[in-house]
Amino acid sequence: MHDLETLGEKRIIRLIWEYLDRMPDLALDFGDDVSAVNIGGGRVAVLKTDMLVGETDVPPGMSIRQAARKAVVMNISDFAAKGVKPLAMLISLGLPRTLKENDIRDIGAGLSDAAREYSTYIIGGDTNEASDLIISCSLLGFSSEERIVSRGGAKPGDIVAVTGEFGKTSAGLKILLEGLSAPQEIEEKLKEAVFVPRARLREGLALSEAKVLSASIDSSDGLAISLHELADASDVGFIIDHVPIADEALIFADIHSLDPYDLGLYGGEEYELIVTVKPQFWKSAKSAVADVGGNLIRIGRVIRERRIEMRIDGEIRNIERRGWEHFRR
Amino acid sequence: MHDLETLGEKRIIRLIWEYLDRMPDLALDFGDDVSAVNIGGGRVAVLKTDMLVGETDVPPGMSIRQAARKAVVMNISDFAAKGVKPLAMLISLGLPRTLKENDIRDIGAGLSDAAREYSTYIIGGDTNEASDLIISCSLLGFSSEERIVSRGGAKPGDIVAVTGEFGKTSAGLKILLEGLSAPQEIEEKLKEAVFVPRARLREGLALSEAKVLSASIDSSDGLAISLHELADASDVGFIIDHVPIADEALIFADIHSLDPYDLGLYGGEEYELIVTVKPQFWKSAKSAVADVGGNLIRIGRVIRERRIEMRIDGEIRNIERRGWEHFRR
Repeated sequence: MHDLETLGEKRIIRLIWEYLDRMPDLALDFGDDVSAVNIGGGRVAVLKTDMLVGETDVPPGMSIRQAARKAVVMNISDFAAKGVKPLAMLISLGLPRTLKENDIRDIGAGLSDAAREYSTYIIGGDTNEASDLIISCSLLGFSSEERIVSRGGAKPGDIVAVTGEFGKTSAGLKILLEGLSAPQEIEEKLKEAVFVPRARLREGLALSEAKVLSASIDSSDGLAISLHELADASDVGFIIDHVPIADEALIFADIHSLDPYDLGLYGGEEYELIVTVKPQFWKSAKSAVADVGGNLIRIGRVIRERRIEMRIDGEIRNIERRGWEHFRR
Repeated sequence: MHDLETLGEKRIIRLIWEYLDRMPDLALDFGDDVSAVNIGGGRVAVLKTDMLVGETDVPPGMSIRQAARKAVVMNISDFAAKGVKPLAMLISLGLPRTLKENDIRDIGAGLSDAAREYSTYIIGGDTNEASDLIISCSLLGFSSEERIVSRGGAKPGDIVAVTGEFGKTSAGLKILLEGLSAPQEIEEKLKEAVFVPRARLREGLALSEAKVLSASIDSSDGLAISLHELADASDVGFIIDHVPIADEALIFADIHSLDPYDLGLYGGEEYELIVTVKPQFWKSAKSAVADVGGNLIRIGRVIRERRIEMRIDGEIRNIERRGWEHFRR
């Protein structure tokens, strides 16, 4: 009999999924960033749920207000990856008895911060007693079947790109969880990346509006594992020839003699989008993102073979399938 | 500074709600059984989320499969009260590390039991590590603005009715939590009421289809508190002249010298519907419910005054505002 640690999150989900009847007419495969149901006339209703758990998702130093904001951002990021505007959301809370009235106010303020940032509304929810802080969000939006971007459409020859740099949250978590340090200004920025993550909603909406993506995923489980998920869903591989690492992460890696690529690839809690674009649409994709103040960074290309390789400075490395997965540490 | 026990669930929700911007164009007031957003053309998207927590919602003796089924039923019941067909749902799980593979299979089986029973589909979700078992469900459906039944439409003179008898779960919980006993056959039925609750979806859909309801709520927090909620939302009161108590609960009350009305009024975890009906629609309402194999039972009438009174056998009693509320025991 396996225990949960051996099973891992993906296998747990698969086990449960085996018991469930399949809904006919789903617009995205099970296991994509969001769920989408055809509702007629080419329209789809898009749903996402994700749960923030105090013990595993709230590192030391993160305030309750930041935690509540993050619970929403985690969900918004998946909508961003599919190019879907979040219309409204529900919040289900599990609250430990040790919380005080001010903590509840902080939860309200943090939820409100996120709802305003991403122009959506919280329209309901419920509260429960629980032994750990639980903030479960459920997001609703609408899209068209042709516009929603799946994980499964990447084709050999497509360009692979990301919406930002990597490595800051990995470094930040090493500071918060393992007690590593860095010069104050850098340390602040690295911790900030963990405490105030940002979802790339504007970028995701602009890219889907421009109809330039063949596939998309968010990087919340880490760049490496998300590339693997994208490769699995599209049945392709990638040659990655550039991993954009944030300056602060480079300095941090240097101080602690860490491999900066390890920080960039195998982290998590980083909410960038990883997208694939046909070469003829690259310029439009770049400018669609630039128009909303973002930056689309080319990191490699899609190949037919089912391997994911990093080729940088003449060196070839395998990008491993590891990163953030609940129940596996 | 108040702690959560003093605040109570309703006040916690209100505190958080104060921080949130109101979405324009909601089809139901905040605090109704479900949330509903106008999506154009007179249509509304309906959402509900509710969380089952192991420690507070799973009494001793309830299997994991039953708990998973119950997590879905809790949500379906709110859709039933609004007369909305559940189209699809998401499940967010918090799983303690102590669970085994077979427990995960039981969760899958229990979720599947409920989805089949109520002809809906589970189309996605996620899993997380948590210190207690958490099963958070989010339900999506569609309705029309005119057909969805709010809590706020009861008018003086309307008939108040329920879809079944009360008291079995109160008695069952006294057996499971307080160690009271009853003759075996009765004890089994009372425990069964707790372990395998049933949502009145067919009844709710039939009533909304027949367009005979002025207001509706589910009784999951107990008959008494739900009557108070309905009265608050509609700004009315009730004279209750009949409280249908299940035979098993009557026998149990007799054995233990309990007031059967206490069992019927102040319980919880009982998923009947409480509805109000204009007298001229009463016959249609009765037969709409009978047509789907149910029973609509008249329990009293709506009055203008803001009091809720029970008048039975010449005795007048106040129906108190108490029942099941998280954080208050």
